[in-house]
Amino acid sequence: MPSPRRLAGVTYEFDTHTAVHHNGDGTYAAELAPGWVVGGGVNGGYLLAVIGTALRASFPAKPDPLAVSAYYLSAARPGPAEVAVDVRRDGGSVATASVELRQPGGHGDETRIAALATYGDLDRLGDDVRTTAEEPFLPPPDECVANAFAPKEILEMAPMMGRFDMRFHPDQVGWAVGQPSGRGEISAWFRLIDGREPDPVTLLMVLDALPPVTFDLGMMGWAPTLELTAHVRAKPAPGWLKVRHATRNMAGGMFEEDCEVWDSTGRLVAQSRQLARQPRPIG
Amino acid sequence: MPSPRRLAGVTYEFDTHTAVHHNGDGTYAAELAPGWVVGGGVNGGYLLAVIGTALRASFPAKPDPLAVSAYYLSAARPGPAEVAVDVRRDGGSVATASVELRQPGGHGDETRIAALATYGDLDRLGDDVRTTAEEPFLPPPDECVANAFAPKEILEMAPMMGRFDMRFHPDQVGWAVGQPSGRGEISAWFRLIDGREPDPVTLLMVLDALPPVTFDLGMMGWAPTLELTAHVRAKPAPGWLKVRHATRNMAGGMFEEDCEVWDSTGRLVAQSRQLARQPRPIG
Repeated sequence: MPSPRRLAGVTYEFDTHTAVHHNGDGTYAAELAPGWVVGGGVNGGYLLAVIGTALRASFPAKPDPLAVSAYYLSAARPGPAEVAVDVRRDGGSVATASVELRQPGGHGDETRIAALATYGDLDRLGDDVRTTAEEPFLPPPDECVANAFAPKEILEMAPMMGRFDMRFHPDQVGWAVGQPSGRGEISAWFRLIDGREPDPVTLLMVLDALPPVTFDLGMMGWAPTLELTAHVRAKPAPGWLKVRHATRNMAGGMFEEDCEVWDSTGRLVAQSRQLARQPRPIG
Repeated sequence: MPSPRRLAGVTYEFDTHTAVHHNGDGTYAAELAPGWVVGGGVNGGYLLAVIGTALRASFPAKPDPLAVSAYYLSAARPGPAEVAVDVRRDGGSVATASVELRQPGGHGDETRIAALATYGDLDRLGDDVRTTAEEPFLPPPDECVANAFAPKEILEMAPMMGRFDMRFHPDQVGWAVGQPSGRGEISAWFRLIDGREPDPVTLLMVLDALPPVTFDLGMMGWAPTLELTAHVRAKPAPGWLKVRHATRNMAGGMFEEDCEVWDSTGRLVAQSRQLARQPRPIG
């Protein structure tokens, strides 16, 4: 394993947990950390960040994810994994690769995620911003509800909650006490527990870190993702992120979940949409 | 080529244009029709429908696209193409494949699109609908602005406009006369020119059929798609479709474009998001 990033002598757990080792043939070895388990599998956003780290190593001159689409084929477990990168095009300002994350299974390697990704250099994009999206309103972090106060059954179902300092909008956290709003919206302040600042690959994880928006519709239980596409639109500034999940179309046992991440300067730095199955009740 | 679908003795051009021939080794031969050219390439939604037709042939018991993510690597031209399907998982109620659309190029085959797709059976999904999305308002079709009246330079840039009967919301078509609204929204009634009714694979095309939403921001010119992910949520009823394009985040020379398709019963049947480059001015 390469050394995780060190700043001022500090090693951050996110860098240790997402570190990959290049085997030299387009494949990378990773070790999925147990701290990212949620609802019986490993969190999909964390897996996306592991994939994103391997891709960043594959494209030194195009180090930033612009678009990543992941199809979740089977539940990952903590332990060894391999990320296989197959470059499909690398020319001009962007590069695109097909990627798979695999783990040893009962009958040889099993694919956990099949993904496509386009990488580029966010610093080389223009500075023009003509956004009509409005930054979500959140009361100051110390007036919000911290994940440290989450009900015990949620913390047991989601050890990964221990990776974050999250402060939920007090009007959108009724689900934690059996009073979901029914609006289909959850938003929160977000930062990594050890103060590690966000970067473009971190955002891939942040886009799938909050509880499923279906909690706010009264459907407790984890929601398996079929597909998630992330767009990283700018490098995030240091500090708290604002994360907002919403859904508009729950139908046929599936729902779409849109996520936005805003940085501390008020810029919309990442967007995602996923298609997920409606959660089964916690049993 | 297999016979295109015939209903009451009618052959529809969409079926002829998207027909594929199975070569027997997981690859399918297609012939990209010149009528789908737009802005120097072949329309990305049409290419998605060609891919979708090959996938439908690959999964007879799971005939419907649930999620498709396409990464556009190079501009396609009318003429022969090959669709290569690599099944990554087929078990339970869904199947996922990696797919590429290729064409002969100067140095061997060139990949036009790399895609991932999950197929299933929309008839087997539940009937529950808890949608908070609101059907867009459009005046009746005969009070809207028909694409037949589009300015000559738009029709020349987009021969594919001849495939459709589109009726634009009169308040969102100012761009056609040099008066874009600046809101970043375009919506229209939509049907195929020969009355061919919509089905799930057709929706893959419909999601990328309207002019880019950047027209409504005063940026005329076609907008190259980097990535487009489509979710098909239900089988569309016969009749007019309502299609709505919107963008909220134009920044760094790129924008996201969200599309919704509603059927004649008022059901939200498909959603997509694409990441595209800001258009360069025409001329």
